[in-house]
Amino acid sequence: MKNKSHNKVTEIFKHTNTSAKVIKVADVFKFTRGGSISELNIAYETWGKINKDKSNVVVIFTGLSASSHVTSSSLDQSPGWWESMVGKDKAINTDEFYIVCINTLGSCFGSTSPVTINEKTGDPYRLTFPELTIEDMANASELLLDKIGISKIKLLIGPSMGGMKAIAFSLLSKKSIENLILISTATQALPYAIALRSLQREVIRKDPLWKHGFYSYEDPPLNGVRIARKIGMVSYRSAIEWLQRFGRKKSVDSKLNQNTFGIENTSFEYEIESYLEHQAVKFQNIFDANCYLYLSRAMDWFDVSEHGESTADAFSKIHIKNALVLGVNTDILFPPQQQKEIAELLTLSNTKVDYKELSCIQGHDSFLVDTTTFSKEIKSFIKLI
Amino acid sequence: MKNKSHNKVTEIFKHTNTSAKVIKVADVFKFTRGGSISELNIAYETWGKINKDKSNVVVIFTGLSASSHVTSSSLDQSPGWWESMVGKDKAINTDEFYIVCINTLGSCFGSTSPVTINEKTGDPYRLTFPELTIEDMANASELLLDKIGISKIKLLIGPSMGGMKAIAFSLLSKKSIENLILISTATQALPYAIALRSLQREVIRKDPLWKHGFYSYEDPPLNGVRIARKIGMVSYRSAIEWLQRFGRKKSVDSKLNQNTFGIENTSFEYEIESYLEHQAVKFQNIFDANCYLYLSRAMDWFDVSEHGESTADAFSKIHIKNALVLGVNTDILFPPQQQKEIAELLTLSNTKVDYKELSCIQGHDSFLVDTTTFSKEIKSFIKLI
Repeated sequence: MKNKSHNKVTEIFKHTNTSAKVIKVADVFKFTRGGSISELNIAYETWGKINKDKSNVVVIFTGLSASSHVTSSSLDQSPGWWESMVGKDKAINTDEFYIVCINTLGSCFGSTSPVTINEKTGDPYRLTFPELTIEDMANASELLLDKIGISKIKLLIGPSMGGMKAIAFSLLSKKSIENLILISTATQALPYAIALRSLQREVIRKDPLWKHGFYSYEDPPLNGVRIARKIGMVSYRSAIEWLQRFGRKKSVDSKLNQNTFGIENTSFEYEIESYLEHQAVKFQNIFDANCYLYLSRAMDWFDVSEHGESTADAFSKIHIKNALVLGVNTDILFPPQQQKEIAELLTLSNTKVDYKELSCIQGHDSFLVDTTTFSKEIKSFIKLI
Repeated sequence: MKNKSHNKVTEIFKHTNTSAKVIKVADVFKFTRGGSISELNIAYETWGKINKDKSNVVVIFTGLSASSHVTSSSLDQSPGWWESMVGKDKAINTDEFYIVCINTLGSCFGSTSPVTINEKTGDPYRLTFPELTIEDMANASELLLDKIGISKIKLLIGPSMGGMKAIAFSLLSKKSIENLILISTATQALPYAIALRSLQREVIRKDPLWKHGFYSYEDPPLNGVRIARKIGMVSYRSAIEWLQRFGRKKSVDSKLNQNTFGIENTSFEYEIESYLEHQAVKFQNIFDANCYLYLSRAMDWFDVSEHGESTADAFSKIHIKNALVLGVNTDILFPPQQQKEIAELLTLSNTKVDYKELSCIQGHDSFLVDTTTFSKEIKSFIKLI
């Protein structure tokens, strides 16, 4: 059964990162909101070498849409999603550290998720997959690290949803975590972010091809996923970046006075419209609609305060030596006020905190784009730990 | 034919403001981007009494979604969209001024639009309606004012898209315009706003019920219009307002662990989600999808610089004595920088300008919601003119 199911998933998601190792980390995995699955597989990749006393481990948790392929490797030379940050002599140096990047439980890039075949039924889980939380993702990461023999984490890094996972992991894990980098993340989802994600999910659910989650993998709800991605991009970037980059420039293939409200995707008059279309089409072809719904809802549900009598009480249970907390002035999805709050909470829990509100024009996505600015901060922090 | 067509439109858009007068302002109306219609009707409402020398006329241009019902009247006592701003002893005093509010050409609230019956075919124009610009709306307003005998405007007011119309009108009109109030508007559409509007139009176009514009008026693309409105609301309001107003409060009718990704509209867990749903459903029931597409695209196309060698050159052709330009610090759709630019351009064209960046938490919609702050500014300005 196992081979068959894995083949099927691989066949469906051809873009699944081929260099990731996928290992079984549990025979049964129980979800925090109820329900369980009979086998949990987690995909991950590693770079560098672990030292004798296993004290050079860097663990990276990803955002919603990223795979474990954080940077290129000899096994997979394609650029990773943080190529300019992780590598030889880069801010996160593969010559110095043993780096583990874990694909999220529920993501369609290798870990068990709604596209995985349920061994009991022989069909993909789809919406029978249990409700997923950030805490489940953290617990699954704990199991993976147990399995590969990691008990000490020199540095844990989480941007965006990865930061939520890192906070949950810091609360739930039995491992020693010495240092922490949190980037553009949150202790709890706020209504503006919930509104945007709710909208993205609604667009997917209202695509007639979604069929209540039981869509054909050959004819999936592409319109829904593509438009959801565009809504995402509007919240990930900033007005000032697009003004500088696109202004009112027209698309090269503009067809004025023709097909203005045509249904075809080619009728994008302004460069900003072509750009969004181009990026979102890339995404619709690699990301599963149901996985998107699960990961998106997990972010809405996240609220650290549920781990104590208050957010501060929950944070008092976190024991980290040093932390770097980075926010971006143009981020409207995870605004800098939320980063400042995290820095203050960590300081109260006796962590030595370096907090920076960076000036970058790329909004929430700045950590992926303005890697010059981010590398500088991360390099300085790593030098001191 | 005329009665039949008007009845049909009235029947389709039951919510069309009943107190608006609809008058024919042209036998043939030519559009700036080409094309014409054989009869142009414009809906409008008035309040107060015109004085002897017709020197107390206030003209209000509306935003995209508003009707001409700016405030209640003896003919229609339902509250208008700016009820707390316009009325007896209010900032815009109906005892002092003769106020005319004009429904936009292309809007489904009474003026000729894509829902109007084309007398030549007996069917609604739908997508055969010519491409619509902000300049067309200004020209149609000029014709309406000619028809009702207005040649001097004491004060012209335009918020949002109404501000674009007011700028275009100031350039194109042959009337004397003494004073101008522009609120949260723009000299040209910038890429961030274009991106948001493009997305709203895509959601409508991708609704299968839209049927390339030839939907049934009994079964219109409600999902598309509703989701477009929600995208709008995310850009009209602000994160800080929703944090204060909703936080992470749950909906009263929340159904946890049940139907999380259900297609039903009732499965909104957080209050912010219920709020968006409630507001957007109201909108989907009164606004025509095709009209929305036309008005939305017109805003993208607007660029004052096309009226001269540059934006400044175009503004040099505007002759206004005094202007009040108001922007809001939390507006991400028409950011305060755009208001400041307008203030500077008007100053260069010898207008005495009062510019204020107001601190309001309601984003672009602040002029509709924080009327206390706006009333104060508008009252002070009117006192001096």
